[in-house]
Amino acid sequence: MFTGLSAFPITPFKQEAIDYKALQGLVENLASANVDSICAIGSTGLYPYLTREEKYDVAKLAVDHANGIPVMAGVGALRTYDVLKNVEAVQQAGVNAVLLAPVSYQVLNEEEVYGLYEAVSHEVSVPICVYENPRVTNFTFSDDLYRRIGKLPNIGAIKIPGTPFAKSAMDNSSSKDIPPSEASSSEGARRLASLREIMPAQIAIGVSGDSFGAAGMVEGCDLWLSVIGGIFPRTVMRIIDAAQSGNAVDAQAQSQALSGIWSMFARNGGGLRVVAAAAEILGYCDTPSLPAPFLPIDKKEYSELEHIITKLSLS
Amino acid sequence: MFTGLSAFPITPFKQEAIDYKALQGLVENLASANVDSICAIGSTGLYPYLTREEKYDVAKLAVDHANGIPVMAGVGALRTYDVLKNVEAVQQAGVNAVLLAPVSYQVLNEEEVYGLYEAVSHEVSVPICVYENPRVTNFTFSDDLYRRIGKLPNIGAIKIPGTPFAKSAMDNSSSKDIPPSEASSSEGARRLASLREIMPAQIAIGVSGDSFGAAGMVEGCDLWLSVIGGIFPRTVMRIIDAAQSGNAVDAQAQSQALSGIWSMFARNGGGLRVVAAAAEILGYCDTPSLPAPFLPIDKKEYSELEHIITKLSLS
Repeated sequence: MFTGLSAFPITPFKQEAIDYKALQGLVENLASANVDSICAIGSTGLYPYLTREEKYDVAKLAVDHANGIPVMAGVGALRTYDVLKNVEAVQQAGVNAVLLAPVSYQVLNEEEVYGLYEAVSHEVSVPICVYENPRVTNFTFSDDLYRRIGKLPNIGAIKIPGTPFAKSAMDNSSSKDIPPSEASSSEGARRLASLREIMPAQIAIGVSGDSFGAAGMVEGCDLWLSVIGGIFPRTVMRIIDAAQSGNAVDAQAQSQALSGIWSMFARNGGGLRVVAAAAEILGYCDTPSLPAPFLPIDKKEYSELEHIITKLSLS
Repeated sequence: MFTGLSAFPITPFKQEAIDYKALQGLVENLASANVDSICAIGSTGLYPYLTREEKYDVAKLAVDHANGIPVMAGVGALRTYDVLKNVEAVQQAGVNAVLLAPVSYQVLNEEEVYGLYEAVSHEVSVPICVYENPRVTNFTFSDDLYRRIGKLPNIGAIKIPGTPFAKSAMDNSSSKDIPPSEASSSEGARRLASLREIMPAQIAIGVSGDSFGAAGMVEGCDLWLSVIGGIFPRTVMRIIDAAQSGNAVDAQAQSQALSGIWSMFARNGGGLRVVAAAAEILGYCDTPSLPAPFLPIDKKEYSELEHIITKLSLS
């Protein structure tokens, strides 16, 4: 299941409760686009904000409406005890994989994060996608930690931040005449090559951070775990198709065409609030679709988003 | 209640469940030391790691054994909905104040944080201690935000990070001959003076980050919200007494004598794991006293901590 597009929908809310009907619409859109997998509750699906019962319900709804497409669910929690309970709940709901970030409030150290993955890896009956996101977890994985985690059972994939690929993208766009061998000696390619050496071959490597997705796929990541792909799956799948057919320049150009979206993500603290607004604009859910304390993006951003969606026929 | 020492005990665990008997011992120690207030579940008491029922139980136990000393409890949560439910629970348990940090996973913006405090300030029946801790919440309060929050009802205190006072401490120690008027023009004093201008006079300003506590109290903070004070209340109260009696040099010297502890905090990702070890060493609870994924500090650190406790007669 760890190939192509892993689409991350929002978990839409209505008056501080999950709007399951709206969620069903979002999942059906992903199923009809035939994405490679759906992450029902990723960071964008607000997994840490949901009770265990809500996690079960969201995962179950996704499994029931995914039309056979594999479903993943976030299980991270502050206490390992709760992570294991979450694993139980979403496995019961029928998910095909779990997404596990070292969620923290008090910042964790390397041994503690290793201990978390060790404990969970021996309890799961589906593969784990190891999730590195320093921005929300205040934790950065060392190569040595990846090496140790790679030796644990049931590790299916790792989801890495896309930052190094920003450098690749710049290299590629500013030096179109450089032969591929040199162009690929970029920072992103080096990071990917070093991770391939560290991790066993069967562990997939996925890129996240949507503005880096095209560059990551061009450099050879196995999958793109995508926030924007949770609402505009066809747009993202066309970029991935281009990247995987060797049309690197086309893939990068398609991503470049979305620069208005990437700037909007940057201005609004990430993709969450922007894709929630997109889901509202497309009629999947009411405004506001995120629970408090989140606020909708402002009216000017809304208008610009509407304009971009229409102009670029995002879908 | 927002004066002197606000002591932050750990919430001790035993086999992944709260050890209420051990907690009672810790609270009784604080009551017998006659601290000014007890924060039953601060960051050190792991409030975000506890269910609402556990928060109620811990707060209730603290109130029942505090011997009349005011009790505060942390109510921060990812959803405003849950913050309000937590407020209800700990108020039911009889607390005298609530501690509220803008807890996040997806990083919050200024309007969202203001909205959180606005919503809660209209629902509480006890004062709120606004809690700024960028290290664990990924959010820094602007002066303008403080100004707006200061105008809300029921704001009793703010708990600020001690970092600027590090500069004061250095200034004071390296320039003992400079007249007080100049010595107090340090960064910490300036920050405090600017907060005093921004916030209404009745709002107390508290320092946190134990290594900066003495400097903060010397510069005139109203209280010290202290992790080490949750296990060694008498040691901290002597520093506060010195600072508040105008014996700045003595207060700083007493804090300087604890430099071994401050280094240990820095080496172990903060005070949590160190004061948990201290509680174990003093026989309040078993090892490990923190829930997974936390790990105890290593044996060498344990020995050093035992040595420091004995040598300095910390109590």
